Amino acid sequence: MSRVLLTGASGFIGRHALAALAGAGHEVHALSRRQPHGRADGAGGAGAVSSGEATWHRADLTDAGEAERAVREIGADALVHLAWYVEHGTYWHARENVVWVEATLRLLRAFIAAGGRRAVLAGTCAEYEWSRERYAETAPLGPATMYGVAKNATRQVAERLTADAEVELAWGRVFMPYGPGEGRERLLASVATALLAGAPAPVSQGTHVRDFIHVEDVAGAFAAMLDSSVQGAVNVGTGHGHSIREIVELIAQAIGRPELVRWGAVAQRDGEPAHLVADAGRLIDEVGYTPRLELREGVERTVAWWRERAA
Amino acid sequence: MSRVLLTGASGFIGRHALAALAGAGHEVHALSRRQPHGRADGAGGAGAVSSGEATWHRADLTDAGEAERAVREIGADALVHLAWYVEHGTYWHARENVVWVEATLRLLRAFIAAGGRRAVLAGTCAEYEWSRERYAETAPLGPATMYGVAKNATRQVAERLTADAEVELAWGRVFMPYGPGEGRERLLASVATALLAGAPAPVSQGTHVRDFIHVEDVAGAFAAMLDSSVQGAVNVGTGHGHSIREIVELIAQAIGRPELVRWGAVAQRDGEPAHLVADAGRLIDEVGYTPRLELREGVERTVAWWRERAA
Repeated sequence: MSRVLLTGASGFIGRHALAALAGAGHEVHALSRRQPHGRADGAGGAGAVSSGEATWHRADLTDAGEAERAVREIGADALVHLAWYVEHGTYWHARENVVWVEATLRLLRAFIAAGGRRAVLAGTCAEYEWSRERYAETAPLGPATMYGVAKNATRQVAERLTADAEVELAWGRVFMPYGPGEGRERLLASVATALLAGAPAPVSQGTHVRDFIHVEDVAGAFAAMLDSSVQGAVNVGTGHGHSIREIVELIAQAIGRPELVRWGAVAQRDGEPAHLVADAGRLIDEVGYTPRLELREGVERTVAWWRERAA
Repeated sequence: MSRVLLTGASGFIGRHALAALAGAGHEVHALSRRQPHGRADGAGGAGAVSSGEATWHRADLTDAGEAERAVREIGADALVHLAWYVEHGTYWHARENVVWVEATLRLLRAFIAAGGRRAVLAGTCAEYEWSRERYAETAPLGPATMYGVAKNATRQVAERLTADAEVELAWGRVFMPYGPGEGRERLLASVATALLAGAPAPVSQGTHVRDFIHVEDVAGAFAAMLDSSVQGAVNVGTGHGHSIREIVELIAQAIGRPELVRWGAVAQRDGEPAHLVADAGRLIDEVGYTPRLELREGVERTVAWWRERAA
């Protein structure tokens, strides 16, 4: 059991990661910009609030003073850092990515200074040079987006910084997460909520192939990475590619309204690669985590989650 | 003429860059952690102090609030950023390099937000993968040191950030600067001050070949980069390699005490490449700046400068 500092704990992946880490028996200290609901009992230091699974601490990681104070107070030996700027539609190119390079390096310095021993950080498949169909961790890097450049540069400094400090670092390159709790503007959520409301769902022709991974598997992979001794980059994907058309068809089948899908009503975005699929060998063989949810089951669970909220 | 924000203005290269920029007719606003000597006349905003060549502003770039406030107040259209952690003997591997990645990216964001148009930043020959004798800007990158990793990562983010903001960026990869004002622990200064004092000067066998460039030429190159429209990486070197033995012999000749040099009394540092010489074609042909001082003349001037201070 470790004392784990979790950032981005109230985000899409973070909420699931919190459950996975708590479920694995860790003492989770969650950081959030917002004050979460829970019980103020002083157990986690000034301003900390306990919920069932974690002790919550309010801190804005983009504020140097707040971040350093919180990290010092928590004194975690492990770090799972998921927080980043992820505003849908803008995060690929936004200048806020640079703010998060700075915030992440500062966080890592503070974690090391506070005696941290092992860190798992979220990277992205956008670090790769998009020139092939399947990517092992050794594939050439060459990000095409601000988001990818920022993550890739952060990783380079983080790897050197942790190596010099004799702190372990694993870097999870996340492929295409989906599942309960994702932003309503994202693909699966937007199609599911439209169809559940009986409204038309405009989508692209959907020919692009992606490695869709259910958010519970993303969370499980990060928890497993923390508990392993693997260092360096690890793809967080299933190893299986599916076209966007396939996932949209699965959603439409689960809801029973295929006639509402408007194929081709949205242009495919420029500059995005036709294929983006992980070689998941390192995650499965070295970390020892095999993604559990097949795409059909994952979609059905996600649709069920949205259905409850639409009711 | 531009309104130029100069960082590191009280440093080794910065003092010479200040003179070069002022000499080229720019309105120089110098930032320094220390309050410089000069005349407080309010011309440059709160707390600014005018000297002959520049208006000085006190700000610690590693403090987010101070840095952003100073950059906003100055409202420069050009930036020459030389400040970094450069403590002799430790800067190659120090964790402070990470602080300067953060500080540099924050500075650049603030400069862009304040309406800046063109930035020239200091990089390093340590960004290259040290595997050859001579380096064009297109040579493979692969830094072996924390300093090189930090500079290289900063450049990747800075290039993307400025391109997206339509701000011009030139990145000067500095080779081996020497000259008046360098730290007393550095090679030329330490040998010159020892010999001038009649004391023995312990040195290595001196077989490593470097591209030594006089600090006035470094400063001239940065001023010329600012006035050019060149973007991307530019080597700041002479294009000529000299062994450390050659430069030490020139010092000893200039002072007339060759018998005081103790060859081999210091081990050559591990991990440093045998050759490190710039292809200076881009600086000379595209920027239009040809380094002026031959090694012999540069050494003689530097020895004369130390002799004045020893007298």
